[in-house]
Amino acid sequence: MAKLWFKNYDLNELLEKFTVGNDYILDKNLVVSDCLCSIAHIQMLSEIGVLTKAEFKALKAALLEIIKLDREGKFEIKLSDEDCHTAIEGYLTAKLGEAGKKVHTGRSRNDQVLTATRFYAKTRMLQIMDKALDLVDSLTAFAEKYKNVPMPGRTHMQIAMPSSVGLWGAAFAEELLDDIAFLKAAYDLNNRCPLGSAASYGVPLPLDRELTASLLGFAGIQNNVLYANNSRGKIESMIADALEQMTITFSKLAQDLIIFSMPEFGYFSLPASLCSGSSIMPQKKNPDGLELLRGKAASVSGLCMGMKNVVRALPTGYNRDFQETKELFIKIMDTAYMSTLVAKLTVDELQVNRDKLKEGFTPDIFATDEALRLVASGKSFRDAYKEVGLNLDKLKNEDPVVAIKKRTSTGTPGNLNLKYAKKTASSYRAFAEKEHNALLDAVNKLTGKKILL
Amino acid sequence: MAKLWFKNYDLNELLEKFTVGNDYILDKNLVVSDCLCSIAHIQMLSEIGVLTKAEFKALKAALLEIIKLDREGKFEIKLSDEDCHTAIEGYLTAKLGEAGKKVHTGRSRNDQVLTATRFYAKTRMLQIMDKALDLVDSLTAFAEKYKNVPMPGRTHMQIAMPSSVGLWGAAFAEELLDDIAFLKAAYDLNNRCPLGSAASYGVPLPLDRELTASLLGFAGIQNNVLYANNSRGKIESMIADALEQMTITFSKLAQDLIIFSMPEFGYFSLPASLCSGSSIMPQKKNPDGLELLRGKAASVSGLCMGMKNVVRALPTGYNRDFQETKELFIKIMDTAYMSTLVAKLTVDELQVNRDKLKEGFTPDIFATDEALRLVASGKSFRDAYKEVGLNLDKLKNEDPVVAIKKRTSTGTPGNLNLKYAKKTASSYRAFAEKEHNALLDAVNKLTGKKILL
Amino acid sequence: MAKLWFKNYDLNELLEKFTVGNDYILDKNLVVSDCLCSIAHIQMLSEIGVLTKAEFKALKAALLEIIKLDREGKFEIKLSDEDCHTAIEGYLTAKLGEAGKKVHTGRSRNDQVLTATRFYAKTRMLQIMDKALDLVDSLTAFAEKYKNVPMPGRTHMQIAMPSSVGLWGAAFAEELLDDIAFLKAAYDLNNRCPLGSAASYGVPLPLDRELTASLLGFAGIQNNVLYANNSRGKIESMIADALEQMTITFSKLAQDLIIFSMPEFGYFSLPASLCSGSSIMPQKKNPDGLELLRGKAASVSGLCMGMKNVVRALPTGYNRDFQETKELFIKIMDTAYMSTLVAKLTVDELQVNRDKLKEGFTPDIFATDEALRLVASGKSFRDAYKEVGLNLDKLKNEDPVVAIKKRTSTGTPGNLNLKYAKKTASSYRAFAEKEHNALLDAVNKLTGKKILL
Amino acid sequence: MAKLWFKNYDLNELLEKFTVGNDYILDKNLVVSDCLCSIAHIQMLSEIGVLTKAEFKALKAALLEIIKLDREGKFEIKLSDEDCHTAIEGYLTAKLGEAGKKVHTGRSRNDQVLTATRFYAKTRMLQIMDKALDLVDSLTAFAEKYKNVPMPGRTHMQIAMPSSVGLWGAAFAEELLDDIAFLKAAYDLNNRCPLGSAASYGVPLPLDRELTASLLGFAGIQNNVLYANNSRGKIESMIADALEQMTITFSKLAQDLIIFSMPEFGYFSLPASLCSGSSIMPQKKNPDGLELLRGKAASVSGLCMGMKNVVRALPTGYNRDFQETKELFIKIMDTAYMSTLVAKLTVDELQVNRDKLKEGFTPDIFATDEALRLVASGKSFRDAYKEVGLNLDKLKNEDPVVAIKKRTSTGTPGNLNLKYAKKTASSYRAFAEKEHNALLDAVNKLTGKKILL
Repeated sequence: MAKLWFKNYDLNELLEKFTVGNDYILDKNLVVSDCLCSIAHIQMLSEIGVLTKAEFKALKAALLEIIKLDREGKFEIKLSDEDCHTAIEGYLTAKLGEAGKKVHTGRSRNDQVLTATRFYAKTRMLQIMDKALDLVDSLTAFAEKYKNVPMPGRTHMQIAMPSSVGLWGAAFAEELLDDIAFLKAAYDLNNRCPLGSAASYGVPLPLDRELTASLLGFAGIQNNVLYANNSRGKIESMIADALEQMTITFSKLAQDLIIFSMPEFGYFSLPASLCSGSSIMPQKKNPDGLELLRGKAASVSGLCMGMKNVVRALPTGYNRDFQETKELFIKIMDTAYMSTLVAKLTVDELQVNRDKLKEGFTPDIFATDEALRLVASGKSFRDAYKEVGLNLDKLKNEDPVVAIKKRTSTGTPGNLNLKYAKKTASSYRAFAEKEHNALLDAVNKLTGKKILL
Repeated sequence: MAKLWFKNYDLNELLEKFTVGNDYILDKNLVVSDCLCSIAHIQMLSEIGVLTKAEFKALKAALLEIIKLDREGKFEIKLSDEDCHTAIEGYLTAKLGEAGKKVHTGRSRNDQVLTATRFYAKTRMLQIMDKALDLVDSLTAFAEKYKNVPMPGRTHMQIAMPSSVGLWGAAFAEELLDDIAFLKAAYDLNNRCPLGSAASYGVPLPLDRELTASLLGFAGIQNNVLYANNSRGKIESMIADALEQMTITFSKLAQDLIIFSMPEFGYFSLPASLCSGSSIMPQKKNPDGLELLRGKAASVSGLCMGMKNVVRALPTGYNRDFQETKELFIKIMDTAYMSTLVAKLTVDELQVNRDKLKEGFTPDIFATDEALRLVASGKSFRDAYKEVGLNLDKLKNEDPVVAIKKRTSTGTPGNLNLKYAKKTASSYRAFAEKEHNALLDAVNKLTGKKILL
Repeated sequence: MAKLWFKNYDLNELLEKFTVGNDYILDKNLVVSDCLCSIAHIQMLSEIGVLTKAEFKALKAALLEIIKLDREGKFEIKLSDEDCHTAIEGYLTAKLGEAGKKVHTGRSRNDQVLTATRFYAKTRMLQIMDKALDLVDSLTAFAEKYKNVPMPGRTHMQIAMPSSVGLWGAAFAEELLDDIAFLKAAYDLNNRCPLGSAASYGVPLPLDRELTASLLGFAGIQNNVLYANNSRGKIESMIADALEQMTITFSKLAQDLIIFSMPEFGYFSLPASLCSGSSIMPQKKNPDGLELLRGKAASVSGLCMGMKNVVRALPTGYNRDFQETKELFIKIMDTAYMSTLVAKLTVDELQVNRDKLKEGFTPDIFATDEALRLVASGKSFRDAYKEVGLNLDKLKNEDPVVAIKKRTSTGTPGNLNLKYAKKTASSYRAFAEKEHNALLDAVNKLTGKKILL
Repeated sequence: MAKLWFKNYDLNELLEKFTVGNDYILDKNLVVSDCLCSIAHIQMLSEIGVLTKAEFKALKAALLEIIKLDREGKFEIKLSDEDCHTAIEGYLTAKLGEAGKKVHTGRSRNDQVLTATRFYAKTRMLQIMDKALDLVDSLTAFAEKYKNVPMPGRTHMQIAMPSSVGLWGAAFAEELLDDIAFLKAAYDLNNRCPLGSAASYGVPLPLDRELTASLLGFAGIQNNVLYANNSRGKIESMIADALEQMTITFSKLAQDLIIFSMPEFGYFSLPASLCSGSSIMPQKKNPDGLELLRGKAASVSGLCMGMKNVVRALPTGYNRDFQETKELFIKIMDTAYMSTLVAKLTVDELQVNRDKLKEGFTPDIFATDEALRLVASGKSFRDAYKEVGLNLDKLKNEDPVVAIKKRTSTGTPGNLNLKYAKKTASSYRAFAEKEHNALLDAVNKLTGKKILL
């Protein structure tokens, strides 16, 4: 289609290639969101009298057609289209003529892409929360199952104190719940509609911003129209921050599993179906999935930094630099989503080797217990500590299960208090389901169709 | 003092210098927090019978002495002390003998420094929120005052549409409110007490973790003791993420002011007292404060990345790498705090030059208004757009105030809806004050003294 | 094709998708390089007697076929192939049977992909150097052309001292030359052949590593086979560091041009063919290319950080995390290359507006000149500085051209010393051409064909 | 002292605190360098007739006094001084009156701090190179000593192929040599004198820039005066890039040693004097030094990103943001230097446990050797690979020393080719010594004194 910003001259070809980048490919992710946002926009335009009911009806039908085509993989965006927004307006104009030329009234591509991105991000975050909560459930069940299985506790990667497989698993469940809490904060900030902010300064038309926000199931409008545009990349980078934290959790989980599944430990093992081989060494079963959880967390942090680098010193109002955040943002969300699935698969399939775990207990792991026994018999802790330290060779092996059970404070190996994680997970689950249902309801009401998101 | 980890050998001198780093200087920030956490710890130890009431009383008095000394700048931490924890235990042992050697019972430096850091971070976040809300108030008052003063709206740094000084100021108020919301999420995650998690695996003593949490005014305990230690650097990096976002807001505010106060624009000017000069050019009045708001935001992002780099692939349990996050974290909080003050000072002192702002309005800024007039007369927007685009030379200057007032949708120049920012700010203010009062009450109850935090 | 690491079980489908990622798409970049490296490998295998001459000949012909197919866009890599290496071995085996199964003798995918990447990076760096030197030439010619055109010199973005358009242009030429010098250092480190390092530890075969290195036109072998594999991602990140520095230069060039082409300055303007428009505002001509030079530099830094994040704490020997660096690396090289072209296009088309530049000279720009006149008349500089500072209103406008010419030290506006940039550029040009010719010669000799790289 | 940019008004107190930051502390690092650069500057001023010989002599003597005071720890810089430059000029003026007021003639703080930083960086880089080459020597000697000691080779952290302790040690020697090569490239770019560039645009005085460059032992001038100032933070960030790469090498070395010294491996052990203990667990010997090598590399990367964030989108000419790079840069150099020392100490003291290394050899490590035996007997590699893969249980243990010796290609365990590292190290050593001597000679000639740098 002709560009949305028709001029009586042509854009230099190299510059076109440079500025479009691979937006025309990335935008496949946004087609459905953009069509839904456009339907809300035209419904509002018809309610304030800018479009006739007939124009609205025709445009809506055509936009639903595009959604259908896209879901069937048949809606094409060409490099010369620049992006999905142009391709969609082009489709409408080709099909409907005059009505198509009206769809952009009172709107800029700035607020259009912003709204579609926020809407899309909302659906992706709900999917990620859902899968992350599945993983929390897996980890909590894992912790429950292995709560009495002793595991050498380490600090500085050296043998430290008696611990349990349950404590280890539950630690990751709780870390992930914190990540979800942080993501929820970003979710709430994202859950406001920027539509109607136009190029950053509004338009001289009585757009009903509250109506479009409500039609799209947003919690409300993003108030200041200049801030709405300034927040491009910023709200997205907050979401990215939260997802980065989530991938850090996966990275640490993976690091533990890679180390503890080395034959020298053998605490855990992965089923063969989760391991890749080598092109040269016939014997290899490599934990590639775990290594990539670790490696992708490392690159996600770079992408996240990239997003903040883009926006950090931009002057007020839309700047084209923002476009550069789109690919980074979509990549981060995709990686977080896939990583969540792989982490859950790993936890679900993880084999726990009780014998190898038990072998890991050596007498020195009980040094602190011995010191505290001396304390109980009246020594000061500092003197007891020294005495044990000078007599390490006299330490004896003890029963690890008994040792674990002596830890009785809340959250310790003998008292995991798993109901904390379960209760917290439930409340997030309820939140995510409520949000998802409300979103589906709004879209159903807007389109008259059941559209899966 | 002798190190807390006495051995019958000496640590290599180079290694001591390397591992201590400047912890012994940084830890000046933590002395008061660490003493308060220690008082809570010993009160709990006395309640579960590990310390006698007399020991508790003597230790508490000595810890209050240290707080007093520190507030007077008289409590010294030497390189050979390693950190404040050792210096404090050393003071107690020197003064009280046997009782001093008991203070560390059931505790590791791991959970000790973690608790002191969380406590300290809590007080700093409350200070930052308070000052950030002052800045929101300044920005909202600024927006109110200049809501009808026209300002050329820009996109791509080029003239775009009519806007107002009010819209500009309010945009930053709302951005800052989002930063505060994100910070609040991190605040809540930080507001849980890790004390009692010991080296990462708890201890075989019936420590009452809920009691110490409550004595220190935390909202509760951080449940899983392994996660508590794994979260070192992580919760801190979430706080850092939120503060990074805040400094990004300052950076963008500064960038706008630097540009718009260049003589070629002259929209705004800074009073001389906020400008530095040059060592060679007698005429210079440079916006150094603004440049450093911008520059410090850039470096804060690096520090924040550094924190996440440290923790990303660490294996479970305490690792010494965590220490490396301390300096980064304190630096980020200090920078965010100072930047907030400087940003507020700037906004409060900013001069708005109405004439220069008005001169910025050139006919082409009204192109969209003209196109929408054609729409009102029946043209499709796309055709109207083309017609105006081919007749740019016919555009005429209009009254900017009238143009602004034609924007009537919520959040636009003609309808700033400042009550949104005011109401949101009020609710955060109430939250921050309630938290601050609860903290002071808890400390007052714990110590029997009024200690300012 | 069946994977190169055949097992008697199937890889979990989700894990396959996760581990393959979009390698199968990215690897289109590597097909030619990988085939050439394979030809060198089999020639060496035939020379040490592991392959017969006939096998070598058949394999070489088939590999040349793949190159031809790839150049015609007809060589396909499927997700189930994992990567180009598998697709290529699959092609050879399908076509040649037994001989195909021998191509991987003495080789691991680890050193195979490493060698192909280094080879590919070499060709890309030579292209980038070539285009960067074109840009240096453009900047130097621009500086020559405008060496006597006055331009207000700024510090802190405020009017500072008399300067010239020539000084401005030449500054970027010299910055770029430094970037090229840094890139050259990375080029030299990359220019060593890791082939024969196998999985990281060599193989029990008398591979002639020096021969393959020489056949491929590398300067020599990368000696230690473990380091060769440990250097995956590291050498690449050094290249990325250098390219990041180059994009920073473009970002600063773009920032200047965006600011100085705002109508309030008007020092420079871009031809319409380099500007995009707006979808809503008919009048807009936006410097999108420049904004993306700036934005892409910001994201490149994130990608570069991501690469280093991946490798920073990896244990010795190949780890799958390395794969994560491939996409980041290719993206960085592509962005640097395209940015170089766009920067050159911009400089070549840039319009310089002498009148607007002259208008920028206001009396205060001559404050330092006045102070130095007082110095010449006997005052100390510090007193002269103060005197001028207290009498700024008495400063008078002077002739900017005369002012420029009074700067006579090397490298100042009156004495640009452009021959420095010209001479330096020439020497890099000679280096790049020599390297490129040597590479083409080696490939020509290896394949018996002229293959453009 | 009064600020160098005297005005008839006072700077706001908060702003002063914010803009000075801790420059006044950091600048202790720069005092000697700044004095030397000032001596060169005044010698040049006297040669072009701006200062009398008597003034030059008096100023030089006073500057030498400051160097002496500083070396004795007696030269103070106060917050109100802002930085060392002001403190120094203040000292000169207080002591010499009129002559002191002339020292700044033809100079700006911009080029003054830039020159002092480049000079200081040069001395620090030479120290770091020297210590890094010591470490290379240690690693090479270590590799020589243990070249025939077998060590299980790993990929994906899983058992892969036979390797040797020698290969492992030499791998790090070669990695470090590449880091030094990259650092050398940055060294050369830094080794040019920016003095005389003034505020960014030169001055109307016939400054002899070549003379000052030569007096200070620089290889030449940094030509374009605007680029000289634009390169602030940039050249420094190239140095930082190279040092970051060096710390990455230390991080990977540390990661290997932490893992391989866990009791489950026991390949290596650290002497007690390099280990710290725990405050609670009497038995702990923790590799804190190694963990901090790893952790500090992670934070150095953040600092390095921070530097590039600062400069990436700055407009032309000096901007105050540059100041923000100073602390980051000094911190990076200090950390790289200390880390080099600690890495060398660790390598020198490392204990190699031959028995534990031998125990690490399990039959599957010989799978590839077995496959290649089948190849030798006529099977294609791919078929041999499959056959071994399906009969892993039939693999037998072999003699690791014999296995190593079968690797004969250059750079493999059986043929380390250590002379490559030795020869390369020698050439860098010669370079560093030549540079250091030339620098000392220049300073000796400039000052008439032996000053250690």
